[in-house]
Amino acid sequence: MHPIDDNRGMPGPLAEHLRAPATKAAMLVQQEALQAARDFLRGRDFTELLPPLIGPVTDPGGRGAKALDVDYYGNPYKLMTSAILYKQASLRGFEKLFYIAPNVRVEPVETASTGRHLVEFHQIDVEIAGATRDDAMEVAAGMLMFVVERVWQNVPDVLRGLGRDPIVFHELLQGGFEQVTHADAVERLLGQGHPQSPDAEIDWIGEELLSHKADRPFFITDYPKGSRGFYDREDPDRPGLLRNFDLIAHGGYGELVSGSERESNYATIVTRMRESGENPAKYSWYLDMAREGIPASAGFGMGVQRLVRFLTGLDALWQVSAYPKLPGMVAP
Amino acid sequence: MHPIDDNRGMPGPLAEHLRAPATKAAMLVQQEALQAARDFLRGRDFTELLPPLIGPVTDPGGRGAKALDVDYYGNPYKLMTSAILYKQASLRGFEKLFYIAPNVRVEPVETASTGRHLVEFHQIDVEIAGATRDDAMEVAAGMLMFVVERVWQNVPDVLRGLGRDPIVFHELLQGGFEQVTHADAVERLLGQGHPQSPDAEIDWIGEELLSHKADRPFFITDYPKGSRGFYDREDPDRPGLLRNFDLIAHGGYGELVSGSERESNYATIVTRMRESGENPAKYSWYLDMAREGIPASAGFGMGVQRLVRFLTGLDALWQVSAYPKLPGMVAP
Repeated sequence: MHPIDDNRGMPGPLAEHLRAPATKAAMLVQQEALQAARDFLRGRDFTELLPPLIGPVTDPGGRGAKALDVDYYGNPYKLMTSAILYKQASLRGFEKLFYIAPNVRVEPVETASTGRHLVEFHQIDVEIAGATRDDAMEVAAGMLMFVVERVWQNVPDVLRGLGRDPIVFHELLQGGFEQVTHADAVERLLGQGHPQSPDAEIDWIGEELLSHKADRPFFITDYPKGSRGFYDREDPDRPGLLRNFDLIAHGGYGELVSGSERESNYATIVTRMRESGENPAKYSWYLDMAREGIPASAGFGMGVQRLVRFLTGLDALWQVSAYPKLPGMVAP
Repeated sequence: MHPIDDNRGMPGPLAEHLRAPATKAAMLVQQEALQAARDFLRGRDFTELLPPLIGPVTDPGGRGAKALDVDYYGNPYKLMTSAILYKQASLRGFEKLFYIAPNVRVEPVETASTGRHLVEFHQIDVEIAGATRDDAMEVAAGMLMFVVERVWQNVPDVLRGLGRDPIVFHELLQGGFEQVTHADAVERLLGQGHPQSPDAEIDWIGEELLSHKADRPFFITDYPKGSRGFYDREDPDRPGLLRNFDLIAHGGYGELVSGSERESNYATIVTRMRESGENPAKYSWYLDMAREGIPASAGFGMGVQRLVRFLTGLDALWQVSAYPKLPGMVAP
C-alpha cells in the first residue's frame, strides 16, 4: 500500500524521522495543501491573521483533553487548545478571517496508539460574520475540493510515490457531500451493531465505520448539546440540538472538520457556560466583549495533519507531523 | 504622519484594538508580506514546515528574556523562544527550509513602553544546509527587497493611507546594502558620543542612532562571542568573533533580521554551551543528534511584526499585532 512508508508503529529519534522519505513526502503535500487553502480563502476575500498562543482562557474543549498552564507574569494563563474565542473577537474588524493555528492539547496517555492524536497540531481556522451553518459548510466543502485538486495538480508524483491513487478522490471532486444528522448517524451505527450513545460525540470507532462505508466525504449535523462547547449555537426551534457540523472523510480517515453557527447572545452564552460546568468568571474579557455585542457568525476548523493524512494515505498522524508529540511520550 | 493612526500609547480593550483602522491596515500589509516571503522562498526551492511550540529545551536567547515553563506529562518543557535547534535538526531531510514561527519571550516589565517588544511575536525562520554567512545575507536582503516591492504592488493604497511614501523605500530597492562590522559600528557610536560597549550587542539606542543615519537597510557583522547564542559559529581565523549578522532597517526602525553561520561540530558546541553558562545535559536530544552529525548551515530569523512596522511606518510593535501582549501587562 505505502511503498515508502516504513510502517514503524511509533516515531524513532527526531533526526531519523525527519530523514524518512515518508516524512519528506508528507511535508511537500502539506506545503501544497496549506498554500491551496490560503489561495482558496484569499480568493474569497478572507484575511489571514496570526493567532495568539497563550491567554487567560482557551476553548474548554472536550473528549478529556486538557490545556497546558503557564505562569504569565504571575497570572495563570493557558496555551490555546483552539483559538475560537479570538476568532469571534476579531469579527468586528475582519468579517471573513482565517488562521493557520497551532494548538496544544494534553490528550490522555491511552490515545498515544490511536494514530489519530497528536499533542501539537494545527487547524485551518475559519470564521465568517453573518454566516449560517450552510454557508460555513459550503466553504469547508469547497476548500477541501480545491485543496485535493491542487495537490494532485502540483505534486502528483509525491502522492503516487506514497501509493495514493487519484481514483480515491474521484467522487470527492464531484462534490454533493451527503448530510446526515447526528440522530441518523447514531441509528445507522446501532443498526450495524455499534453501541453509539445518542447523547455524545460519534466515537472514533463509529466515525471510522461510517467513514469506511462512504465513497466521498460527508457531513454529520445537529450534535446534541452536551457533546460540544458553549459557543456552538443551540437550534432555537429544536432545543437540545446544536446548529453545528463535522465533515468526515471517506475511506476510514474520519473527522477532518468541526464547525458551527456560533452563539452570540450574552445571556445565552453565560447560561451555556453554566450548563457545561464552566465558570463564567474565568472568561471575563470574552464576556465583556459579548456584552457589548459580537456579530453572529459561523465557522470551522479543519485539522491540518488530518487533512495531510487523508491526502497522503499514511497510517498515523505522527507520520505527517515534522515534530510529532504523541500523548504521554517524551519527545523533542 | 499617520492619518489613521490614533497614536494611543498602549492598546485598549482587544475588541477596540481589532476594530481600529490602523490594525486593519497593518493586517492587510502583514498578509501580503508573508505571502511574498513564501513566494520568494518557495521560488528558491525552500520547503515550509510547521514549527514546534514546546520542547524540553529552547533557544537560551539573550537580553534578559525568559522562556515560559510547562508541565508536559510530568516533564519540564518550555515554550519556544526560537526554533533554531529544530531548524538544524531538520537539515538532513530538508536542505533549504523555513517556518513562519510563533515565539514567546517573557521580556522584562520595563520593556513594555519601548515600542519594540512583544511577548508573543513571529519570525520568518530560514535555514540553508551547506551555506555560508554571505549566502544567508544574500537571501535575507533579497527577501526584504522582494517583500517591499510586492506590498507596494499589491496594497499601495493601504500603505499610503497609513502615511507611507514609496520614496522611503527607493534606495532599499536598489540593493547594495552596506556591511559594517560590529567593531566599526561601536567606533561610529562612540564617535557620536553614545557609550556602546564593544563586548555586547549593539543596544537599542545605538541601533536606532545608526538606523536614522542610513538611507537603506545595512548589515552589522562579526558580533563578539559573549553577545550571542552557542549556535552562532565562531570565526576560526578570528577567535572571539562570530560569523553572524544583523540586518538593520533605516529610518529608525532598527533590527529586522538576526542570522549566522551555525556551529555544527559536537565538541565545539559543548564548549560553547559551557562558555555561555548553559548546562549541556539539558540539551540531550540536540547533542545526541550533533554527535551523529548535523550539516553545516547558515540561516536567519526575520521578525514579522518588526517587518510590518517598518513597512507600515507605525510607531509601536503592538499596533501591528492582532493580539498584542506587552511585557508585564495582562491582556487576552
